Amino acid sequence: MTVHHFQPTHYHTTIGSHQPVLRVRSGDTIVTTTVDARGAGETGQQITPPGNPMTGPFYVEEAEPGDTLVVHLDKLTPSRPTGWTRKMVAPNVVDPDYVTQLPWPARPEDSLAIWNIDNAAGTATLDDTSTSLGTFALPLAPMVGCFGVAPAKGEAISTATSAQHGGNMDYRGFVEGVTVYFPVLTPGALFHIGDGHALQGDGEIVGTGIEISFDVTVTLSVQKGKLIHWPRGENADYIFTVGNARPLDQCVQHATTEMLRWLQNGYNLDPVGAHILMGQCVEYDLGNIFDPAYTMVCKVPKKVLR
Amino acid sequence: MTVHHFQPTHYHTTIGSHQPVLRVRSGDTIVTTTVDARGAGETGQQITPPGNPMTGPFYVEEAEPGDTLVVHLDKLTPSRPTGWTRKMVAPNVVDPDYVTQLPWPARPEDSLAIWNIDNAAGTATLDDTSTSLGTFALPLAPMVGCFGVAPAKGEAISTATSAQHGGNMDYRGFVEGVTVYFPVLTPGALFHIGDGHALQGDGEIVGTGIEISFDVTVTLSVQKGKLIHWPRGENADYIFTVGNARPLDQCVQHATTEMLRWLQNGYNLDPVGAHILMGQCVEYDLGNIFDPAYTMVCKVPKKVLR
Amino acid sequence: MTVHHFQPTHYHTTIGSHQPVLRVRSGDTIVTTTVDARGAGETGQQITPPGNPMTGPFYVEEAEPGDTLVVHLDKLTPSRPTGWTRKMVAPNVVDPDYVTQLPWPARPEDSLAIWNIDNAAGTATLDDTSTSLGTFALPLAPMVGCFGVAPAKGEAISTATSAQHGGNMDYRGFVEGVTVYFPVLTPGALFHIGDGHALQGDGEIVGTGIEISFDVTVTLSVQKGKLIHWPRGENADYIFTVGNARPLDQCVQHATTEMLRWLQNGYNLDPVGAHILMGQCVEYDLGNIFDPAYTMVCKVPKKVLR
Amino acid sequence: MTVHHFQPTHYHTTIGSHQPVLRVRSGDTIVTTTVDARGAGETGQQITPPGNPMTGPFYVEEAEPGDTLVVHLDKLTPSRPTGWTRKMVAPNVVDPDYVTQLPWPARPEDSLAIWNIDNAAGTATLDDTSTSLGTFALPLAPMVGCFGVAPAKGEAISTATSAQHGGNMDYRGFVEGVTVYFPVLTPGALFHIGDGHALQGDGEIVGTGIEISFDVTVTLSVQKGKLIHWPRGENADYIFTVGNARPLDQCVQHATTEMLRWLQNGYNLDPVGAHILMGQCVEYDLGNIFDPAYTMVCKVPKKVLR
Repeated sequence: MTVHHFQPTHYHTTIGSHQPVLRVRSGDTIVTTTVDARGAGETGQQITPPGNPMTGPFYVEEAEPGDTLVVHLDKLTPSRPTGWTRKMVAPNVVDPDYVTQLPWPARPEDSLAIWNIDNAAGTATLDDTSTSLGTFALPLAPMVGCFGVAPAKGEAISTATSAQHGGNMDYRGFVEGVTVYFPVLTPGALFHIGDGHALQGDGEIVGTGIEISFDVTVTLSVQKGKLIHWPRGENADYIFTVGNARPLDQCVQHATTEMLRWLQNGYNLDPVGAHILMGQCVEYDLGNIFDPAYTMVCKVPKKVLR
Repeated sequence: MTVHHFQPTHYHTTIGSHQPVLRVRSGDTIVTTTVDARGAGETGQQITPPGNPMTGPFYVEEAEPGDTLVVHLDKLTPSRPTGWTRKMVAPNVVDPDYVTQLPWPARPEDSLAIWNIDNAAGTATLDDTSTSLGTFALPLAPMVGCFGVAPAKGEAISTATSAQHGGNMDYRGFVEGVTVYFPVLTPGALFHIGDGHALQGDGEIVGTGIEISFDVTVTLSVQKGKLIHWPRGENADYIFTVGNARPLDQCVQHATTEMLRWLQNGYNLDPVGAHILMGQCVEYDLGNIFDPAYTMVCKVPKKVLR
Repeated sequence: MTVHHFQPTHYHTTIGSHQPVLRVRSGDTIVTTTVDARGAGETGQQITPPGNPMTGPFYVEEAEPGDTLVVHLDKLTPSRPTGWTRKMVAPNVVDPDYVTQLPWPARPEDSLAIWNIDNAAGTATLDDTSTSLGTFALPLAPMVGCFGVAPAKGEAISTATSAQHGGNMDYRGFVEGVTVYFPVLTPGALFHIGDGHALQGDGEIVGTGIEISFDVTVTLSVQKGKLIHWPRGENADYIFTVGNARPLDQCVQHATTEMLRWLQNGYNLDPVGAHILMGQCVEYDLGNIFDPAYTMVCKVPKKVLR
Repeated sequence: MTVHHFQPTHYHTTIGSHQPVLRVRSGDTIVTTTVDARGAGETGQQITPPGNPMTGPFYVEEAEPGDTLVVHLDKLTPSRPTGWTRKMVAPNVVDPDYVTQLPWPARPEDSLAIWNIDNAAGTATLDDTSTSLGTFALPLAPMVGCFGVAPAKGEAISTATSAQHGGNMDYRGFVEGVTVYFPVLTPGALFHIGDGHALQGDGEIVGTGIEISFDVTVTLSVQKGKLIHWPRGENADYIFTVGNARPLDQCVQHATTEMLRWLQNGYNLDPVGAHILMGQCVEYDLGNIFDPAYTMVCKVPKKVLR
């Protein structure tokens, strides 16, 4: 149960079988940092090319394909006083004939909004009082946009997108205190993490949350011989499964199928019992509807699982 | 502000320009009943053919195309001691290659589960202790599955599906106390209502909530000259818009576009302000992912709208 | 085998259980006319409201639900010297972020192009030499955009869209000489026809073919007790099935499933034989990708069916 | 204009920035071989792991990001006397509730059909007379299932799927004599090729064409400074563009947008002219509807382009 303090010196914009930056053992904790989606760190200076640069990968000694990597998000803290968002709902999220009515920025520099982040007060405040929103503050809800494990067979997948290995899911449920499960697809699992958001709406419909650098603490452990097919997670109130694909219908199919497997294999429900329970108790959240692969999350309340 | 007590004698399985059963004025309240999805009323006996039979239509004197019909759901009470659900997640909601692993019932009579409804205790209890769920009780959360107004140009749309006029949206947010807005598409609006659920999971993924007859009280009023494009609603905490289509991506497009219109026309937000707010504050709920048209709901918390 | 000459006096913009305009017997031929998509007839004057007005419905005495209506397209002839098209690819057919680059017309009158139709020469010639196309002529290929039978249970479906009953499929394969099969869903079948195109590209991606009034001759007959689920057709070289839905993936599912049924029930192929044949011999055409429901067509060459 | 004879010694199941196996100059021809989708070569023995193993990558000296790689398919010849197909339409290609009626093989060895390939006679004949197809022969139509260039930014994309870089498109139009254009995304382009099919139906709906090893001759050249966004191609009769995504609707969007760019930049059409032409002359083909990304092809006949 070692605690590793790791300061990254380079980053990756794919999740793949890159050279590990650190080797840890199951149960170890890593204290590290992440840059924002454009590669800017805690000083606000860009230190690496943009595109959701990842810290890592971290090699977990015990992890082999067919196992499950357990990632506990111990601590997620914005590490600088400002973050940024885009200011226009993405064209793919509105009706096609409404796209011409979007507030397209005339100049690139008009496309971003700056937010002031106050960790002590727990607020993000829009640094622009020229819109009709006036002084506009929202409660912080720091979450990880992009994290996961190296895919199988030497694939290196862009951090713009997501799949079975995790990736850029942009689900606002990935907050401090949550436990996330990834299928191990390569030896050592090769865990990557980055793309912190101070807060985000469902769907990441403007293409960003409030993008910011993070101080991150995670604890990684391995469940040997436990095979899962899609990312899973749990918090105090729910277990959940994550489907990444297009269209959203297919995300729902992946997440629902994975939940049916979990209820039957992990909670000893018979098939008919699992289906009856799902039918009347299931809930779904939207992760992102912006990236190349979209994300839907299938949730079952723990209280109905006794 | 008359209160009408209306006892239906026949029902419709399309929403269309049928002969009105009652003419009311804007502001009037209707106390009536609905049968369940298979046409069974408060005695449990089937009294009309199945397929979400509708009570109505109710003609509202002031309503003309281009207006908005306001429907306040005053009271929704299950009116008999049992409801029923299907017992298998629908094939379209799981991965295609998982369909063979669903618990297909060998006999039709094995496809339904009965639930005992206790309005006083506020519970629905599964009347079958043979599954691994054992004694399984859930809190009641009565909601309307299918309601809306007659579509334009003489269309008569099956109550199996939904569109701009409302219809079979199966959204668990349509509960007592909620106000719903429909675009008026024909003179008199011609409001229909039915398909009550004692409770339901997101997505109606087994094809049913707990299907049951209802005692219903609604108040109908008209907003003259107010043009909307999709159903809208509000409760104590949220305003919301509803998109009905396939795939879910298109539901999101319809609902998001309608919300952008609402924020700009109804809340005096400038375009950039509306987009910034949506980006970081929006939430989405899944209505149904079972019917011919699926449903997604776009929500904005009232607390960020001051 | 009577030949009926029928001159319509009114039209319908839904396909539904409307009052029949003529009752015929199985095997009878109908010689009639259709107006264009905006309701203009052979004089070019608008004589009925727009929206794909249908001629009919025609009641076929022998037809009952569960039968198949056979429609032979004997003759389809443009009946006036000009037709019209829209001039911009629809926003839903291009990438969302490309929509702003479409040539949106500043004025409604700039949105239509006129084409001169010469039946003798067999050409349609663009009546506008101001574009870079210069003098632009295409060979005529007259086809029916919208036709079908009344849907079940009193539904009346807009002629803007399509479903199991047929409707606005906009498939360029529905030309003179083709035989089309529709499932009979109501007594008498209630056949409707309209929306002639002098020619059309795949997908009807500008929202129109060359829209024009038609002289139409069709022969209707009934196959008693033959149950089909989706429109089917055949020409000299192919049998084909039609799926109408969204997204296109679902159109393919409907059409492929219907073809698997046809091969096994109509051509005595065993399941494995039908699947092997489909795998290596199937072809697909795109009907429309513009209407509320899209259309894909699944074809099998007759030469591999012996 | 050198002709290189290259015999591969290893293969890749991702398309990525792998070590080049050969460096060539623009205009050079490569004569080489490919193994089948399961890694079996001309002897029928498996010589490399399965999953569409690629021959290459080939580094083209002049190619830099922003250029176009031109691939002329000079010669595609099946190199052994047998190929194989799967025998069941994939579950995602039929209606979800029809999946249980598919002829699922009881044993893995029952899932494949062998076909005898006769290059001289130009036929593929099913080596199984036990189905209702009897003796079943089809004309050979050899095509490339998977080929393309390395994606940008170090991505390595599985040969199971496709994207802007090409990949597993399974389009039956990629036959001998066709010229294909790929966007160059990395220095040298890094061209990969494999997955030959003796013939295939549209959609690759059983998950395979007739899978076989190939003798391949291709000529590679570079168009400097020519930027394209998706694969393009041309044959004697058509120019075409290729969209790879899900759902098929999005494939159509990508391919149509790319064709609009081509017509305006490559054929000097003004926007309105390009749109009018597309509307009435475009055709679409279905590539695959089986792989993680589907494929649709947008075609314009050369005869309307003068």
